[in-house]
Amino acid sequence: MSYTREVFQRLQSLSLKLLSNPPPPAGAYFGFRLHAGFGFLAAQTSGYDGRFTGAVGNEISLEQGKLAAQTAALDALSRIHQALSGFDRRVGLPHVAGHVASAPDFFEQPEVLNGASRLFNFVLGERGRHSRTAYAAPQLPKRITIELEITFAYRR
Amino acid sequence: MSYTREVFQRLQSLSLKLLSNPPPPAGAYFGFRLHAGFGFLAAQTSGYDGRFTGAVGNEISLEQGKLAAQTAALDALSRIHQALSGFDRRVGLPHVAGHVASAPDFFEQPEVLNGASRLFNFVLGERGRHSRTAYAAPQLPKRITIELEITFAYRR
Amino acid sequence: MSYTREVFQRLQSLSLKLLSNPPPPAGAYFGFRLHAGFGFLAAQTSGYDGRFTGAVGNEISLEQGKLAAQTAALDALSRIHQALSGFDRRVGLPHVAGHVASAPDFFEQPEVLNGASRLFNFVLGERGRHSRTAYAAPQLPKRITIELEITFAYRR
Repeated sequence: MSYTREVFQRLQSLSLKLLSNPPPPAGAYFGFRLHAGFGFLAAQTSGYDGRFTGAVGNEISLEQGKLAAQTAALDALSRIHQALSGFDRRVGLPHVAGHVASAPDFFEQPEVLNGASRLFNFVLGERGRHSRTAYAAPQLPKRITIELEITFAYRR
Repeated sequence: MSYTREVFQRLQSLSLKLLSNPPPPAGAYFGFRLHAGFGFLAAQTSGYDGRFTGAVGNEISLEQGKLAAQTAALDALSRIHQALSGFDRRVGLPHVAGHVASAPDFFEQPEVLNGASRLFNFVLGERGRHSRTAYAAPQLPKRITIELEITFAYRR
Repeated sequence: MSYTREVFQRLQSLSLKLLSNPPPPAGAYFGFRLHAGFGFLAAQTSGYDGRFTGAVGNEISLEQGKLAAQTAALDALSRIHQALSGFDRRVGLPHVAGHVASAPDFFEQPEVLNGASRLFNFVLGERGRHSRTAYAAPQLPKRITIELEITFAYRR
């Protein structure tokens, strides 16, 4: 079984599937660029559709925040799939930076971002192992809750 | 005509020119570093000269914000030119992260950053195509309005 | 004398030493990942131990902030040492992004981060020369004062 099929089966076991059309760029840029074995992605978000809106600790609970982070991770996987036409080119995910729209007294950004990290670890297996940085944002563009910045790796 | 000359002509058609002296580092660091076909730049900003000061949605309007972003993009181009002595080493711009000093109720950071993206696209043509992430900052160092973080690519 | 020993002697001359156990990841991720001559690190911080807590300009003075930044730089060096079992694989530090938890009216983030940059420059010598970006954060995870995001380079 191809690795891409494994990825799809693992997603299915969670009742998740890739977005067939990742949201288009919100401006004068592109969804992804590839260079020298590294892939660069436009913002992967918890959705511009208003499903998750606002800051964790205010409008969004910790549990909802984790789900928002999982949604952003699914957006990231969808974009990688689109960029490489699957996951078989030895995809790696060396680093994930996660930005969490946060109430002023909310400090549990790492816990929120585990919603994304756990999805990457489960779905990609060893290839999903990543280092991570977490940030608190006062707000994010279009009131989104989570924005991920990922550089992925692939076999050229 | 060399690609570098094309770049200069396109800038000239907008009545813009590269900064002959990009602002020196504001601390104990260097303006750029090159490694393995990637170039790393110190902060590219809308200027420490006070031309643009403060947050979009407060002191700075959306239209001024776009101009500030264009100014930061010009700073970036100037630094790349300085690092590679021109643009002929197959310069690429795989990713642009843009940080916008923002009033608490301002959510149109992508629109602001289009001021930078459109300059890159127009001046560098296909080689300027980039993915992008946008962030809202409560403030930025020295009260600047826009800070870009760019890793560029070049032929070794 | 090996370069690794030189690094240790320079640290010792400042009465500093590497952390024997860098803080473990605060979530479902790894402390570092290596890919294609680049090393990616999990957040390097001024410590989750509460030694430095809160924002520069509020609970933390400018001088304490510089010390917090130096502490985060020591964390970074410790993680690089751990990732490469020393510093002899031609370590480079092309870029440092520094996030400073900041009071709303504090704009001297570059000065704070010089506490980190000066340690890198002194301890690693030429190989520590880096470009840098500085950001103001309203808060950082777990109330930490400084978070660094570094991609390092090494000989494969």
